[in-house]
Amino acid sequence: MTGPASERTRVHRHPERGAYDRATIHTILDEALICHVGWVDEEGEPRVLPTIHARVGDTLYLHGSRAARPWRALRAGAPVCVAATIVDGLVLARSAFNHSMNYRSVVVYGRAREVTEPEELDLAARAITDHVAPGRAAEARMPTVDEYRQTLLLAVPIAEASAKIRTGPPKDDAEDLGLPIWAGVLPLRLAAGAAKPDPSLAAGVPLPPSLRPYRRPRPAG
Amino acid sequence: MTGPASERTRVHRHPERGAYDRATIHTILDEALICHVGWVDEEGEPRVLPTIHARVGDTLYLHGSRAARPWRALRAGAPVCVAATIVDGLVLARSAFNHSMNYRSVVVYGRAREVTEPEELDLAARAITDHVAPGRAAEARMPTVDEYRQTLLLAVPIAEASAKIRTGPPKDDAEDLGLPIWAGVLPLRLAAGAAKPDPSLAAGVPLPPSLRPYRRPRPAG
Repeated sequence: MTGPASERTRVHRHPERGAYDRATIHTILDEALICHVGWVDEEGEPRVLPTIHARVGDTLYLHGSRAARPWRALRAGAPVCVAATIVDGLVLARSAFNHSMNYRSVVVYGRAREVTEPEELDLAARAITDHVAPGRAAEARMPTVDEYRQTLLLAVPIAEASAKIRTGPPKDDAEDLGLPIWAGVLPLRLAAGAAKPDPSLAAGVPLPPSLRPYRRPRPAG
Repeated sequence: MTGPASERTRVHRHPERGAYDRATIHTILDEALICHVGWVDEEGEPRVLPTIHARVGDTLYLHGSRAARPWRALRAGAPVCVAATIVDGLVLARSAFNHSMNYRSVVVYGRAREVTEPEELDLAARAITDHVAPGRAAEARMPTVDEYRQTLLLAVPIAEASAKIRTGPPKDDAEDLGLPIWAGVLPLRLAAGAAKPDPSLAAGVPLPPSLRPYRRPRPAG
């Protein structure tokens, strides 16, 4: 376990939940389906948008749209704060005050740069497609030059980042333990239902390997 | 359907996905388990944190910690941007470019005020407890005066807000429809597993109504 890369990435509240090692940060980024990107707009006001991301090594790729105004500031290299959060369960304590959540979250600070080189565009597009459904980049038709022109891919170095993790049962005050109130954890996870084929799907096209079954990368053990 | 409350809440990219009516915005805020709060810190840098929220009428309550440094700027009435996002499914197109997600998201802009009156503290604490698990406020021991002193509850008016919603199958280009590539939607939802009682739970305390079964409020129909 290494220390925080900066003061703002240090976990002050519940420091025992903080983690700063790359493996932990990478695992959470890989499993989280979406992230929320925050930045400061031209008027100095905060903005937050959900988007899809993917990690390749120590680079976080973000998927935006060239046509979407909010992304213009980010293309220009504005500072961003990216948060990825996985909710693992509700922690129900006897007291409302000690209710909590089991979660794994990562925050990354940095400046986004626009991906422009064809080779890196392809790398990032494949990573984002595989992030959504592992193996999907090998199944789908990958972008044409014109489609890449309409796509905005941003890269943020995963250099200033931290993770925060809560696991385990509730922590009630000693004097509450005897109360006749149920306490424990309700596990939560993102679950896939039955795939719905596109109404215009040609007959005989089977469900692809990326969905048989659909699985997000999970930490080992 | 009413129009956007401000230019920054107008959905420019895919305007057909935008919604500005209170019922739609409220429903998404109620169902989304957590939200991400963005603000600008003392150095002018963007910050984003996940947190629990609850809606009461046209007020969005946010749960923070008095001990957590990042929340200090928010207590002082700094502008915030709150994003709540529900992922409903993966939209797999034949082309990587037309991959998408089905989702319902809300963004709220405003200034947070700290809740200080005992009556509103109680209202907000009950709302947040019930937001996590509907009915839980009637089961749990509610906060003492000292516990309220350690809790930070913020209120943001839901005045400048918009929703963005995508539903339905993928939209591939006409020339891709004949490709032998599976296309369709994989529905996703937050699913609860089997509740795990606290190891110190007294014998004979039954699973409470809030978990039998656990359900988040869903839109009708």
